[in-house]
Amino acid sequence: MTADAPRPGRRRGTGNSRATILDSARKLFAEQGYDATSMRAIARDAGVDSALVHHYFRDKDELFVSCIELPADPESVLAAVARTVPEVRGETLLRAVLGLWESSAQPALIALLRGAVSSAPNAELLRQVLTKRIIAALLTDLAGNAADRQLRGALAASALIGLLMTRYILKLEPLVSASGEEVISLLAPTLQHYLTGNFPRSPSPA
Amino acid sequence: MTADAPRPGRRRGTGNSRATILDSARKLFAEQGYDATSMRAIARDAGVDSALVHHYFRDKDELFVSCIELPADPESVLAAVARTVPEVRGETLLRAVLGLWESSAQPALIALLRGAVSSAPNAELLRQVLTKRIIAALLTDLAGNAADRQLRGALAASALIGLLMTRYILKLEPLVSASGEEVISLLAPTLQHYLTGNFPRSPSPA
Repeated sequence: MTADAPRPGRRRGTGNSRATILDSARKLFAEQGYDATSMRAIARDAGVDSALVHHYFRDKDELFVSCIELPADPESVLAAVARTVPEVRGETLLRAVLGLWESSAQPALIALLRGAVSSAPNAELLRQVLTKRIIAALLTDLAGNAADRQLRGALAASALIGLLMTRYILKLEPLVSASGEEVISLLAPTLQHYLTGNFPRSPSPA
Repeated sequence: MTADAPRPGRRRGTGNSRATILDSARKLFAEQGYDATSMRAIARDAGVDSALVHHYFRDKDELFVSCIELPADPESVLAAVARTVPEVRGETLLRAVLGLWESSAQPALIALLRGAVSSAPNAELLRQVLTKRIIAALLTDLAGNAADRQLRGALAASALIGLLMTRYILKLEPLVSASGEEVISLLAPTLQHYLTGNFPRSPSPA
């Protein structure tokens, strides 16, 4: 390689810079964790100027959140879930989540879930993504007052996260080997119950 | 302090050595994670000889597992859960788990769950504890063939871990502020369904 050869990994701010930055961010977040990864280090890894990173992403939080939104277009997936009638939303949601986790993005998602659990600030970040994006979509047009809906969303999140933890992180059989359809038939009734079923009683708002 | 004063943190192998070793192990596992913590470092922190650590604990795995068994006597708690009739075991289990997590051991348990999730070997260790101890107790006297029982145990574990993750790690409201009794009334029916309810169909053993 001569001195004139382009430096490997160095790319200028062309049309693909955003994707390049996201690739570097996913890699560094997964390898080093959220806290130890700076916007500057991500820019360096992506071979772009820090200013370009800040052009695309307001801060490290926004960049991290964007990393979680991996294949396809999760916004449109969530919007599709929100459009289904509440009576079948449990199954629709489970199908969408499994579709994401069974895709080529699985290793990145596992790394991100691990990272998000490993420290309190990262857990807070995942909490915000869950609350503001995923649960918000899940609750669209659901009956009940705000407290009821918040409770239903949290219970659905607990069922989903429990599934992701046992199937992909702890690898508990037979949930690892079960097909997506089998998982859906086992867990969709629970999710549906949390979203639209009758509870014995609700937690008091006090 | 004179040169003759006992060195702080140094204790000899008296009757309390096992507890002292466990205290040091919990601290180091929580601070540094499982991989970065050696038996030797634990002995050093506890102020005992490495041979004494190996006298009480066969290897680092056994020491880690012993750290998870924190207050009261978890073996007898699990045995009590195993003795209840299967029809109410969901509630009994949830009450036992919450009793543990609402105790003074909560920070240690959170640190241990975080550590267990943060890397693949630690996840494997938690999987073994879950499978060999907790789920085994849960399945005592349950009807069904081995595959059915394994599935029921894994589903119950997913519900429990989802609750622990949302209530204690991600801190999703209203599951954080809800009382133990409220959590039990919301989640015991799900656990009970997984343990003894009818499923639409079971995953094929193939």
